[in-house]
Amino acid sequence: AVHGSQKMEDYGRFLALLVSALLVGFVSVIFCLVWVFHYREGLSWDGRAGEFNWHPVLIVTGFVFIQGIAIIVYRLPWTWKCSKLLMKFIHAGLNTIAMILAIVSLVAVFEFHNTSNIPNMYSLHSWIGLAAVIFYSLQLFLGFAVFLLPFAPLPLRAALMPIHVYSGLTIFATVIATALMGITEKLIFSSKPSYSKSPPEATFVNCLGLLLVVFGALILWMASRPHWKRPQEENAKVLLPIGGTSEGTEAESTMTDGSNANKSELKISSEAARRQNLKLDEAGQRSTM
Amino acid sequence: AVHGSQKMEDYGRFLALLVSALLVGFVSVIFCLVWVFHYREGLSWDGRAGEFNWHPVLIVTGFVFIQGIAIIVYRLPWTWKCSKLLMKFIHAGLNTIAMILAIVSLVAVFEFHNTSNIPNMYSLHSWIGLAAVIFYSLQLFLGFAVFLLPFAPLPLRAALMPIHVYSGLTIFATVIATALMGITEKLIFSSKPSYSKSPPEATFVNCLGLLLVVFGALILWMASRPHWKRPQEENAKVLLPIGGTSEGTEAESTMTDGSNANKSELKISSEAARRQNLKLDEAGQRSTM
Repeated sequence: AVHGSQKMEDYGRFLALLVSALLVGFVSVIFCLVWVFHYREGLSWDGRAGEFNWHPVLIVTGFVFIQGIAIIVYRLPWTWKCSKLLMKFIHAGLNTIAMILAIVSLVAVFEFHNTSNIPNMYSLHSWIGLAAVIFYSLQLFLGFAVFLLPFAPLPLRAALMPIHVYSGLTIFATVIATALMGITEKLIFSSKPSYSKSPPEATFVNCLGLLLVVFGALILWMASRPHWKRPQEENAKVLLPIGGTSEGTEAESTMTDGSNANKSELKISSEAARRQNLKLDEAGQRSTM
Repeated sequence: AVHGSQKMEDYGRFLALLVSALLVGFVSVIFCLVWVFHYREGLSWDGRAGEFNWHPVLIVTGFVFIQGIAIIVYRLPWTWKCSKLLMKFIHAGLNTIAMILAIVSLVAVFEFHNTSNIPNMYSLHSWIGLAAVIFYSLQLFLGFAVFLLPFAPLPLRAALMPIHVYSGLTIFATVIATALMGITEKLIFSSKPSYSKSPPEATFVNCLGLLLVVFGALILWMASRPHWKRPQEENAKVLLPIGGTSEGTEAESTMTDGSNANKSELKISSEAARRQNLKLDEAGQRSTM
């Protein structure tokens, strides 16, 4: 009973954080829209300022908010009765949407620059931002090839999963850092009177920057709590790299059938038993050294 | 034998990453010095540009490089024979140095601004940077009170350790993001000809920005590999929060004696045995639900 109420309390804490993240992410998108419609030239696709404005809107909507949701989609407890394959499709799908929006937002900036004869790719923002989009696309392609297609052998999946998790979170943090640089650039270039006079626009958009940091911090907290991970499949094999128990593991094949509803409790205890065996093996190996 | 060679290979991988991080961090500091001495006005303490220049130098040296080293100091395998208390002093000491350098670097900017009649605290860089220094000081103070002083009970230490680890890494990432905003600002305000003309200074300092991102990524990778964690003390109590096994745990008292040299192998296997018991308990609880 104690264990059960602890579990409920923990579930409540997860829900509170999820609602906070959704709220902060949603408010960030609203802030971005208020920025471009109230303080700037609105949205258009004519190579002028209104086209540039798609850049912050699409980045905050796609590359920050949707990417953040894609990161924690496996953590939602009510999805644990869905097949892993379905969840992989949702994860990959959300990330694909985020990538497309990020690429469209790059096109908007390049077209705006070209129309206005502003050079491209001179700033640190542009260097790190382009690198982030390239690494993100690579991550999506590799994730698709290794974890979604049914060809990669289990040991390869197990070996690459910690790298996939780390790269994903690092790219996400880098995207937020790049957005902060972008806000800084845009406010210096455009706010009237100058940024240093703290006009209402600058104060408002600084708050958008703070919201993005808070959103990132919430997503990273939810993604890095080991006890909020989706329980492993029943037929998971013991194929983990050294220390691989504590991060996202991928010991299930894409080819397993998806009929695993209402078995999650069983799965949890079978996973605990599996880990036990692993630890026993480890202890045995170590004590004979 | 297979397990032993795997361990050596893993040790080699850790060393390679450590050397890379030290190198990238060191080169970042050099880049920063070349920036202020070759492209800018050098260093002085007279309220003018030379005083401002202490800001990037002290931030990159203290708040990025030294903080990064402080984060991974428990991971150095050759320190595992030192007492945990000694390592806590080194961790706290390095962080204290980093905090002092960060505060001096803030004084430099405020004095420069005041001399030149530039407003303070108007930019997103200043908002997030000041927040980072405040949270960093809080983190240091709380870490000192809970983990270094011998008064906090073990369950409190165990409950706070995952939060300490998460806050530390999040603040570190935020500091790097703030440095990138600072580079962006400074290049827009000062580089001649303008930033968009890609003068040599701008390209050079963009590279400094890239180095900071690589340094941060290396430190975060080393800090988040569970198998590179310092093994737990022999007399560690089983007092972990839900899921607390996979992150930095603090189940040792500051009051334990420090004479634990040459016992690390024993400790590793005793730790494995401890985890086994924990998992057995967990499995027991779960299977009766």
